[in-house]
Amino acid sequence: RRKQKDVTGRHDARVIVVLGAQWGDEGKGKLVDVLAGRADVVARFNGGANAGHSLVVDGKTYAFHLLPCGMLRADCENVIGNGVVVHLPTLFEELRQLDDGTDASLERLVVSSRAHVLLDAHRVIDGMIEDEKRGRSTGSLGTTKRGVGPAYASKMNRNGLRFCDLVGPDDVLVERLGALRAFQHAHYRGCVPPTLEADDEELGKLRQFRDRLVAKNVVRDTVTLLRDRIAANRTILAEGANAALLDADFGTYPYVTSSSTTVGGVCTGLGVPPSQVDCVIGVVKAYTTRVGAGPFPTELGLDAGAGRHLSSVGHEYGTTTGRKRRCGWLDVPLLRYSHAVNGYDSINLTKLDVLTGLDALKIGVEYAIDGEVLPRGYMPASLDELARVDVRYVELPGWTEDLSLCRAFADLPANARRYVRAVEEALGGRISWVGVGPGRDDMFVMPGVH
Amino acid sequence: RRKQKDVTGRHDARVIVVLGAQWGDEGKGKLVDVLAGRADVVARFNGGANAGHSLVVDGKTYAFHLLPCGMLRADCENVIGNGVVVHLPTLFEELRQLDDGTDASLERLVVSSRAHVLLDAHRVIDGMIEDEKRGRSTGSLGTTKRGVGPAYASKMNRNGLRFCDLVGPDDVLVERLGALRAFQHAHYRGCVPPTLEADDEELGKLRQFRDRLVAKNVVRDTVTLLRDRIAANRTILAEGANAALLDADFGTYPYVTSSSTTVGGVCTGLGVPPSQVDCVIGVVKAYTTRVGAGPFPTELGLDAGAGRHLSSVGHEYGTTTGRKRRCGWLDVPLLRYSHAVNGYDSINLTKLDVLTGLDALKIGVEYAIDGEVLPRGYMPASLDELARVDVRYVELPGWTEDLSLCRAFADLPANARRYVRAVEEALGGRISWVGVGPGRDDMFVMPGVH
Ligand SMILES: Nc1nc2c(ncn2[C@@H]2O[C@H](COP(=O)(O)OP(=O)(O)O)[C@@H](O)[C@H]2O)c(=O)[nH]1
Ligand SMILES: Nc1nc2c(ncn2[C@@H]2O[C@H](COP(=O)(O)OP(=O)(O)O)[C@@H](O)[C@H]2O)c(=O)[nH]1
Repeated sequence: RRKQKDVTGRHDARVIVVLGAQWGDEGKGKLVDVLAGRADVVARFNGGANAGHSLVVDGKTYAFHLLPCGMLRADCENVIGNGVVVHLPTLFEELRQLDDGTDASLERLVVSSRAHVLLDAHRVIDGMIEDEKRGRSTGSLGTTKRGVGPAYASKMNRNGLRFCDLVGPDDVLVERLGALRAFQHAHYRGCVPPTLEADDEELGKLRQFRDRLVAKNVVRDTVTLLRDRIAANRTILAEGANAALLDADFGTYPYVTSSSTTVGGVCTGLGVPPSQVDCVIGVVKAYTTRVGAGPFPTELGLDAGAGRHLSSVGHEYGTTTGRKRRCGWLDVPLLRYSHAVNGYDSINLTKLDVLTGLDALKIGVEYAIDGEVLPRGYMPASLDELARVDVRYVELPGWTEDLSLCRAFADLPANARRYVRAVEEALGGRISWVGVGPGRDDMFVMPGVH
Repeated sequence: RRKQKDVTGRHDARVIVVLGAQWGDEGKGKLVDVLAGRADVVARFNGGANAGHSLVVDGKTYAFHLLPCGMLRADCENVIGNGVVVHLPTLFEELRQLDDGTDASLERLVVSSRAHVLLDAHRVIDGMIEDEKRGRSTGSLGTTKRGVGPAYASKMNRNGLRFCDLVGPDDVLVERLGALRAFQHAHYRGCVPPTLEADDEELGKLRQFRDRLVAKNVVRDTVTLLRDRIAANRTILAEGANAALLDADFGTYPYVTSSSTTVGGVCTGLGVPPSQVDCVIGVVKAYTTRVGAGPFPTELGLDAGAGRHLSSVGHEYGTTTGRKRRCGWLDVPLLRYSHAVNGYDSINLTKLDVLTGLDALKIGVEYAIDGEVLPRGYMPASLDELARVDVRYVELPGWTEDLSLCRAFADLPANARRYVRAVEEALGGRISWVGVGPGRDDMFVMPGVH
């Protein structure tokens, strides 16, 4: 018998999952941060340091790319699951924000013994591959050169270095790293020195990190750990990195990240069976943004009109790169597809306030090609086909009232309420939270949700 | 509200999953074949042509490595999901068994537009990597050199060729294949000719296969298709390839296959959300076997005694290689771990008949290291640690009666019943079927299961 759905994470859900439902930057951080306050364990299950939120606590800003956001809460246990690829210098850099290098914060962190180590060499290879692509007409995929793709490729080639081998006997580490190094030297010439003996700089660094991890018993079997927590009625919050349309399988390949960003990634990346995933929350921005190249059916020009409005009012710039994000109207066919894959139990609609001041609002509700409407929920896999879709829109009236002080659905102006209901109807899913500003409190729960 | 669990696949389950619970060769084929008779759709979600059953229908033997087993049933729709990597010559070779090359059988096959094409070049690269490993002390991983690892690595490197690009405009195919070829030429010298222009043999073959697939509209969006089938109350049978301990994340890495063989792979490989996975069946052989190298705690010598018995009575030889499989007693800690990851709703115990004639039977129930018993459900991630475990056994009396005619639990000799109950108790899971011989009918359902 399945436990009752619990969209707020308060009652008896075992595993609650928060996922980006579009192309990323939906504003997952705020919800994750709120839910972390009610969770016993916060877990990352996918990706590497290519995601990340900024969180402001007691006036101090923390930037997490790799750490679960429960690290900011004294009573949360934090898990980096087997599905994650971990760059150790980045991990320790992030931890430094919390403990100034004393490693006190490591007490609340567990890294799966089955997670893979992302080496500096993976980053170098990432850059090399990127440059090669740039040399060709295919163009750049806009990756962050953080080595994530090559680290997963090593995992697939079965010469990746796992954490259990990092913290095991030193000769095992040397042997595994040596084998990987030999492979990388053979196939990505110039990226790594030929042998460990010729240059053991990375090995030296790894040993230092290893000793710090071992001292605090950070590397553990997280399959058993999570199973035990669930058995003890603890609530696990699984924090998704990236978003559905960036999924290696279901996203707009090849403009995707190299991991499972959809709900299946929770099972493959933590070892939790589907029957324990009680609540899947999709975070949906009230409009659409996208970083980098690739088709974008509801895209608007950023130089004028609604496009400029969304870009500037929404602060749609990359956090690290400062690059402008592409902006467009809400894309419902994309969301229906994302909903088919993830099965959202509830939706967090964010950044509704950004729409304030626009005369007329559009919602893309159907795709058509050559005059023929595509089936409901169908999302072209081929980018070529996706680039050719015409979008059918519905138009809704805008509003000018400031939403930032609204703390209930009834506080919204009538046209904003109408927009929220139109989204709900188009999606065929239930919206549970609405975000009306960047602050932690600028969010309210919809009527009937508890 | 979750639908009721349905272990036999007869009532209202939406997605039923059959998974190998050990190191493979558990005898999944028979159960999958039986359940396919009640399913509307049979789907493969992971791996490539590195798995496979032999099925005997009307006296003719069929060997499937890539095709879902529902291809043998006129009323089944068959899906190769996005999580699979497909070698087209192999696919068409298997189809030829069904239709002598007329492509009539393609009518019942759908390949996901998001699945990746496994190229001949991936096989060559697989062999190259394998040879390099052999040159080193690490030894061979015992891969089948079917290109599965390199195909998934291409997927991760985001230059893989997807089926939607195979069947799209020819210039897209040429461009994508050209980019992959350039990459492979740069990094795996000698494996592929430098450019498509210099040698388009593979391109020519792909175009022929493409035309045959296009003629029957085989390549489709399977996310939408499966969602529609589920909405129409159809039952989907997801047929796992390989087994839990061969999973890229949870298996005995690096002696694993390069895909998700555990239940999360159903979600990532088909795009079905966890909430629709209603029934997960683990197939457990009454003892343990393993192919290739790597630690094997309950292993027995094959030259005499129980080891020789299991090997010869169980016909434990590789189907294609003819290599002897390693054999040992049933390993319950391994199964508990496999159960933690997959959450079996029910278990199919196979090959109980193979134990007939052994005086005393042992079941490995606990692992210990240096005299300390490891926590229940804990499976060492490190091979080094796994190689050091001591196994604690319980011993049970054997039986000599022929089981092959038993068609109910009550028909089993008392000691066989005791063995089955001991397994159930050790696992903390429910056994639904027991296999007592190689034939399709040599299997019965346990009391209380319907
Ligand atoms: N105006 C406004 N900003 C929001 C809202 N929700 C989140 N944000 C901001 O959106 C930005 C991106 O959020 P973040 O959580 O980093 O996105 P992520 O990539 O999905 O994790 C942050 O600066 C948030 O403060 C909202 O409802 N309104
Ligand atoms: N003796 C015996 N053989 C079985 C039983 N179940 C399956 N087999 C045989 O075991 C072999 C391997 O099964 P197969 O389905 O190919 O294994 P898979 O790799 O798990 O799919 C086949 O020859 C089956 O006929 C059983 O209960 N008893």
